[in-house]
Amino acid sequence: IRTGSGYDVHRFGPGNGVWLCGELVPHQAGLLGHSDADVGLHALTDALLGAISAGDIGHHFPPSEPRWKGAASDQFLAHAASLVAARGGRIVNVDVTLICERPKVGPHRARMVARLAEILKIDQGRISVKATTTEGLGFTGRAEGIASQASASVWLPR
Amino acid sequence: IRTGSGYDVHRFGPGNGVWLCGELVPHQAGLLGHSDADVGLHALTDALLGAISAGDIGHHFPPSEPRWKGAASDQFLAHAASLVAARGGRIVNVDVTLICERPKVGPHRARMVARLAEILKIDQGRISVKATTTEGLGFTGRAEGIASQASASVWLPR
Amino acid sequence: IRTGSGYDVHRFGPGNGVWLCGELVPHQAGLLGHSDADVGLHALTDALLGAISAGDIGHHFPPSEPRWKGAASDQFLAHAASLVAARGGRIVNVDVTLICERPKVGPHRARMVARLAEILKIDQGRISVKATTTEGLGFTGRAEGIASQASASVWLPR
Ligand SMILES: [Mg+2]
Ligand SMILES: [Mg+2]
Ligand SMILES: [Mg+2]
Repeated sequence: IRTGSGYDVHRFGPGNGVWLCGELVPHQAGLLGHSDADVGLHALTDALLGAISAGDIGHHFPPSEPRWKGAASDQFLAHAASLVAARGGRIVNVDVTLICERPKVGPHRARMVARLAEILKIDQGRISVKATTTEGLGFTGRAEGIASQASASVWLPR
Repeated sequence: IRTGSGYDVHRFGPGNGVWLCGELVPHQAGLLGHSDADVGLHALTDALLGAISAGDIGHHFPPSEPRWKGAASDQFLAHAASLVAARGGRIVNVDVTLICERPKVGPHRARMVARLAEILKIDQGRISVKATTTEGLGFTGRAEGIASQASASVWLPR
Repeated sequence: IRTGSGYDVHRFGPGNGVWLCGELVPHQAGLLGHSDADVGLHALTDALLGAISAGDIGHHFPPSEPRWKGAASDQFLAHAASLVAARGGRIVNVDVTLICERPKVGPHRARMVARLAEILKIDQGRISVKATTTEGLGFTGRAEGIASQASASVWLPR
């Protein structure tokens, strides 16, 4: 069993909703980024890539390439999962933490878990989405952006 | 083997000690929070819940509920451990990192490890408490609060 | 299989290069610290120590001791690896994330992975080095310093 961890941050900008773990969550702002800025999917993609020593999200999907402009990030995560499968491996479990004061994640957690299960093609029981605040401190506390950390446990045949 | 990760932050406020990993550590300030604000226990509780895909600490112990006001956080961690046991699982090891300039954690580490072993009902050899600073940077560097990250490795029967 | 996580931060100061994962990366600044301030190696050392419940880097190499002044951090990591070996254990895989806007890590990734493999005496296929930015937010976004998080998966004989 190998493990990986990921971390990502995106900054708030104009908008009325944010993509988090593959779900559009209504909010008084949006998140800026070259792609859809889904911090949860980006952190998780990196955790999977890290677990199998396959580079990072910026290596596979360079922000400098126009074709990823506004891209839906589920394809980034699906690609990481396909690399695990190509190695004959299996995702044991994944755990995503969203770090922000707002929006509230709880009401959307079940849909996020279902969406991640769909993208990763694993059982919902192997997926965790959590949320926490930084109690008003730092850039997340000042509502300048959202951070996410993720961990992944992956079985590889060697 | 499944893995989970947790993160938590609490802000300094008036007081003369902080709860960290179940121990009261003398300090020139306290930590604010609905419960006893033990960032170490909160991050670790979330890591365990994440490893078994059982929601997060805010889901199980909503800050909106008056009965958790000033609550000792060891009960949050004990609850997470009981959920692992209820699934027929076993905690393989846990690792907590406390991120702050002060108080110094080293002198209290052994007692924290002993306390965590007591709460989790596992051997001290399966527990790690570490500390680091952010070299004066960010909200922890400015002594506005304490952050904690934790990871947990859990064996589940399926 | 046990897992550990590490986190470290160092502040930019005068200089023309930074040590990251055992490689000197040219940059318009240096990193301040008692040792060579290699945040990647420090976070990874802590992740390994955490996985085997063996204290933290500050416990083994106190900044208060003059002999670690300007020390090359590869010896810290090698020591953690030797503690794993002394327990009859084996490092399954490690994953380091470097968090900064600059320097760009990608061009140096392959050499970092090779260097870590050398220090840890494990196959390069068990090593991951990733990078991410915080999109201009927080102390890393303001280029005040570099942060690093790491995770490690370790097999121990009991
Ligand atoms: Mg991103
Ligand atoms: Mg808390
Ligand atoms: Mg350091």
